[in-house]
Amino acid sequence: MGTKFAAAIIVLSSLLCGSFLVSGQASESWRHQLREEAQQCRLDRLSARPPSHRLESEGGVVELWDESEEEFQCAGVGAVRIIIRPNSLSLPKFHSSPMLFYVEQGEGVVGLNYPGCPEIYEAESGEFSTTPAKRRGRAVRGVRDQHQKVHRVRRGHIVAVSAGTVEWLHNDGNKDLIVVAFMDLNNEANQLDHQIRSFYMAGGASREGRQEGRGSEYLVNIFNGFDAELLAEAFQVPRDLVRKMQQGSSREGLIVKCNEEMSFLRPDEQEEELSSRNGVEETVCTRKIRYDMNTHKESDLYSREAGRVNIVNEHKLPILRFLGISAEKAHLFPNAGYNLHWSMTDHRLVYVVEGEVEVQIADDKGKQVFNERVSRGNMFVIPQFYSTMARAGPKGAEWITFKTSNQPRKSPVVGYTSVFRGLPQQVLEQAFQISPREAQDLKQARRQQSFLLPPFSGSRK
Amino acid sequence: MGTKFAAAIIVLSSLLCGSFLVSGQASESWRHQLREEAQQCRLDRLSARPPSHRLESEGGVVELWDESEEEFQCAGVGAVRIIIRPNSLSLPKFHSSPMLFYVEQGEGVVGLNYPGCPEIYEAESGEFSTTPAKRRGRAVRGVRDQHQKVHRVRRGHIVAVSAGTVEWLHNDGNKDLIVVAFMDLNNEANQLDHQIRSFYMAGGASREGRQEGRGSEYLVNIFNGFDAELLAEAFQVPRDLVRKMQQGSSREGLIVKCNEEMSFLRPDEQEEELSSRNGVEETVCTRKIRYDMNTHKESDLYSREAGRVNIVNEHKLPILRFLGISAEKAHLFPNAGYNLHWSMTDHRLVYVVEGEVEVQIADDKGKQVFNERVSRGNMFVIPQFYSTMARAGPKGAEWITFKTSNQPRKSPVVGYTSVFRGLPQQVLEQAFQISPREAQDLKQARRQQSFLLPPFSGSRK
Amino acid sequence: MGTKFAAAIIVLSSLLCGSFLVSGQASESWRHQLREEAQQCRLDRLSARPPSHRLESEGGVVELWDESEEEFQCAGVGAVRIIIRPNSLSLPKFHSSPMLFYVEQGEGVVGLNYPGCPEIYEAESGEFSTTPAKRRGRAVRGVRDQHQKVHRVRRGHIVAVSAGTVEWLHNDGNKDLIVVAFMDLNNEANQLDHQIRSFYMAGGASREGRQEGRGSEYLVNIFNGFDAELLAEAFQVPRDLVRKMQQGSSREGLIVKCNEEMSFLRPDEQEEELSSRNGVEETVCTRKIRYDMNTHKESDLYSREAGRVNIVNEHKLPILRFLGISAEKAHLFPNAGYNLHWSMTDHRLVYVVEGEVEVQIADDKGKQVFNERVSRGNMFVIPQFYSTMARAGPKGAEWITFKTSNQPRKSPVVGYTSVFRGLPQQVLEQAFQISPREAQDLKQARRQQSFLLPPFSGSRK
Repeated sequence: MGTKFAAAIIVLSSLLCGSFLVSGQASESWRHQLREEAQQCRLDRLSARPPSHRLESEGGVVELWDESEEEFQCAGVGAVRIIIRPNSLSLPKFHSSPMLFYVEQGEGVVGLNYPGCPEIYEAESGEFSTTPAKRRGRAVRGVRDQHQKVHRVRRGHIVAVSAGTVEWLHNDGNKDLIVVAFMDLNNEANQLDHQIRSFYMAGGASREGRQEGRGSEYLVNIFNGFDAELLAEAFQVPRDLVRKMQQGSSREGLIVKCNEEMSFLRPDEQEEELSSRNGVEETVCTRKIRYDMNTHKESDLYSREAGRVNIVNEHKLPILRFLGISAEKAHLFPNAGYNLHWSMTDHRLVYVVEGEVEVQIADDKGKQVFNERVSRGNMFVIPQFYSTMARAGPKGAEWITFKTSNQPRKSPVVGYTSVFRGLPQQVLEQAFQISPREAQDLKQARRQQSFLLPPFSGSRK
Repeated sequence: MGTKFAAAIIVLSSLLCGSFLVSGQASESWRHQLREEAQQCRLDRLSARPPSHRLESEGGVVELWDESEEEFQCAGVGAVRIIIRPNSLSLPKFHSSPMLFYVEQGEGVVGLNYPGCPEIYEAESGEFSTTPAKRRGRAVRGVRDQHQKVHRVRRGHIVAVSAGTVEWLHNDGNKDLIVVAFMDLNNEANQLDHQIRSFYMAGGASREGRQEGRGSEYLVNIFNGFDAELLAEAFQVPRDLVRKMQQGSSREGLIVKCNEEMSFLRPDEQEEELSSRNGVEETVCTRKIRYDMNTHKESDLYSREAGRVNIVNEHKLPILRFLGISAEKAHLFPNAGYNLHWSMTDHRLVYVVEGEVEVQIADDKGKQVFNERVSRGNMFVIPQFYSTMARAGPKGAEWITFKTSNQPRKSPVVGYTSVFRGLPQQVLEQAFQISPREAQDLKQARRQQSFLLPPFSGSRK
Repeated sequence: MGTKFAAAIIVLSSLLCGSFLVSGQASESWRHQLREEAQQCRLDRLSARPPSHRLESEGGVVELWDESEEEFQCAGVGAVRIIIRPNSLSLPKFHSSPMLFYVEQGEGVVGLNYPGCPEIYEAESGEFSTTPAKRRGRAVRGVRDQHQKVHRVRRGHIVAVSAGTVEWLHNDGNKDLIVVAFMDLNNEANQLDHQIRSFYMAGGASREGRQEGRGSEYLVNIFNGFDAELLAEAFQVPRDLVRKMQQGSSREGLIVKCNEEMSFLRPDEQEEELSSRNGVEETVCTRKIRYDMNTHKESDLYSREAGRVNIVNEHKLPILRFLGISAEKAHLFPNAGYNLHWSMTDHRLVYVVEGEVEVQIADDKGKQVFNERVSRGNMFVIPQFYSTMARAGPKGAEWITFKTSNQPRKSPVVGYTSVFRGLPQQVLEQAFQISPREAQDLKQARRQQSFLLPPFSGSRK
């Protein structure tokens, strides 16, 4: 993981190479400068941005953040936002890296497919059932449809998907279903490169729908990589059916509008929550993959004045231990603050869900590399070890933070459990050349708070 | 491991740099294109190939696949084929990465050397023994020769060798002994680079024997890196002997023809198999390192119509847990198929041992990146997540697959435990815009088979 | 970890690119050569060197080894030497990688700050205490100063510091306190790049103090990355105090001379040693972080004729299991040797503490890549798998070796537990084309010794 920056380093070294192409300096000097520069990942100008690419489909839109931007490459992360219209289906696909997706708006049904897990759910049945009396399957030729577990998701849920696992998402609500997916491209489960690689089982993006600069290749489903004849013989299905698989819905893109009502079984939510807590050991098939980031009952940090933070980690969602990632959601009241701190363990990718937040980030040289008011729909990277502080705007702010570690640890500078509290007073006095009283002021500053700070006036009036 | 592609990325970005040297475009446009391209590992034209280099020795031949080929670099793997003539010795050496070697032909004796393990075997004794009565050592100055364990290997065996472990191989059979070694260059046990690095304890390749393009350096054994005088003093042996170690057999290359019959102790095979199953905890010294990939008794997949697959993983050969690699051997009947699937966990390096197999591979964009009939002696890479399907030729096929994971998992598309079976029928209908009956056809296709498909006619007549 | 060399590879490939800029060869040939060269990390000319950069401060000097030198990049390591004058303080800071620091001279007090650990030590108290009667704190406004644990260190101690952990060091002795810090930049705890990144909580290096070639940026403490107004509001402290934090001591650099005597609590050493052995499970807060590399009681290798070696690994200092690093200290008598061997597991960074040592290193091609008499204050890299042998100078030698593995394993070539002992005699005969007697000589050479060799005459008279 220490090599997260390899690709970005290459970009930099190559850019350097490019600039020398232009400036034409002698190779000796060039060689020297290269040695000085090549091994570093410049992260001295970060910025927040909305998605840079858009792929329109009949049933919705896929929006991508460009993972080749330096800070995304440096952190080895990628992000996609998917907008699914009512009664539309984000087609089955898998990705080359583990990911978390957050439901920003709406509700729907998600299916994850694990090879080897039983198909014990039946369509058109209102509840989970294996008793014949309750079976009212959507029969074709007398065969009731059985499939793997599906999960209901709604606003505030986060869903964990492992690399190579087929996943699909259906909007059965009344308004657009919006999910934001965060990917850990540098995860050890991904032995491929730092590109976002989506392998679709159906559909395909039309050439028109692809923005320029993302390559001229036509993205189609994986069946197009095989001879229709071979597939038909191998699967023992009509060649005509194989052709439909290959080309059938490519005009619709990656999200299709359904031409009938979908009727998957939807397990009762409460029942599901209960079963996940009753101590039965999880297998890969029964593993909980969903967590409600908006729950009030289990906030990890709560301040009556400042707001709350909900964390999802390997303790709350054990699959994260295997995926090596985690997340937190902050909900801050107007003008409340998030204390100065750094992450000891991970890069972070932050997406603002509501309101506006003023964020400052400093690098190892004490340089300010980020100072923006970030509004809803924008995303930014906080590199590991970089110090950061935030303050909600006049209407408060909500954001979701994706972390490239399953055991994230943060170190706050002032307040409860902070660095200043842990340092001997004399060290503070000598370090800052300040009086004993001033040193005590620093040690006692915000002594009741750790991360959430009550509203205060900001630097800009 | 997410950075397996770093080196290959560099090649690509540098090539890009090179091409711009020629085309002389402006640096701004160059910078933009670079950002688009640099972070990716192009794997859009794979091919099967025989070894590209040959090092002749008196006692045999070392053949290398060029690990700098893009797909080898991308997968972080390397491969070597060694042909050892009767009564010849592949000299003691170690490698910078863990490896599995497969015995393609012949039989012989292999020795692995673990520092700190006891020398409890004696030469010229027909069996393992520590009782004095049985000691009939090849005595010099009254000292019987004691050495570490040696292992008999024959056609179909696979042997696991950890990084930095000295290994030698002697052909005591009547025909050439041929082994194919697969190396996981990107393994975490290798902190060096993605080159195949062989450290020889004896011998050396003559300049003539080295093919062009592999660098002009003379490969000699490690003792040549030290002053003879210093070695002689340090080891307290005659300087003359040190000179022999350094230069003595360099004319013979890397495999020497023995000038007498070898008489290592060969532990009874059955006894060895038994002892490895009797529940005694393995130590690094007693660890089983060999597995028979041709055993009929323990096939993991078996089909009376299609053939069989033997897998060796950490459960069958626990050392693989530490090495992070595994393998499988497929034996397919004429025209039988290997189902469409992708690997969720690893890159694969496939070597065809017998017959011919037609293989197709598709990338994430649905592009066909490989479509070849691969015959005996050729090797190809299947990148992680890339879908693949295979069909044996008219005479059947056998191949051995090396995997860069100790817990490999594959996801089949149709058939038993497949993606299609796990998906709700309605999702299939909407995804492919097909009828309920067609969706059921896909769900029920090959329902009795998982990976092995009975013979079918292929795409090419 | 197999990608330790990514950055260095880039340097090489880019250099190649640069040279072609000059030579103007055709891109096809260039492409070919690139493929041959790009994926390798040349390590064919190693050298020992003193630090290359110096940052003067009022209270001492920070000296850096240039981590962009090829061998440092290849091994993914960095090193810094800090000289702290009496009653001076190396300011609180943290680093982007785990590190070990070795106390070369003097004594002092070190503080490590773990977020969430209790502040149970009180200043100006002669012992650890929580009973009110013993509290004689340095009160300000009636508040006694409480802080986290501090540790006494002196010559020969090694201290383990995890990535992101704030650490400070005060010299309370009479002579300069000198520590050498070894950093594992490629460690998985560091998701940033292969630069040495120090994040200071106070102070800053003046522009004058920075050597050329290290970039023109001014290194200041992290508070400079935030608006003073925002910090003052967030911390609820006077803006004037924030300004002092940001700029106050930047003139003094990174080590400040204290203007009064420091009086941290210093836990009784013996008590600390005892408590760390009494079987209480370690938590992150009580974890032992210090080990005496000069202890005679616990030498791992001892020879009355040759000297001794003290190893610190995860068994002696359990925190190393989490940090993935370890170290050993060798103390050789005049002209004694360190046997020919290679490391199976790690790169090594060697720093000579006393005397002089003659070292030879060979690469995989049998080429001598290092042959130097290394004297006090110099450092060199031994790449993983490269064979090496050493011999102390006429006055003996002491050196400290940092290793990029928490489970280091070495393989010696001759002597007890060696490769030669483990090989069948006949293999040696055939490999070197030597007589049975000579083969026995090699097997029996240095049979009483493993790594430490009694004094012998060297290669240079």
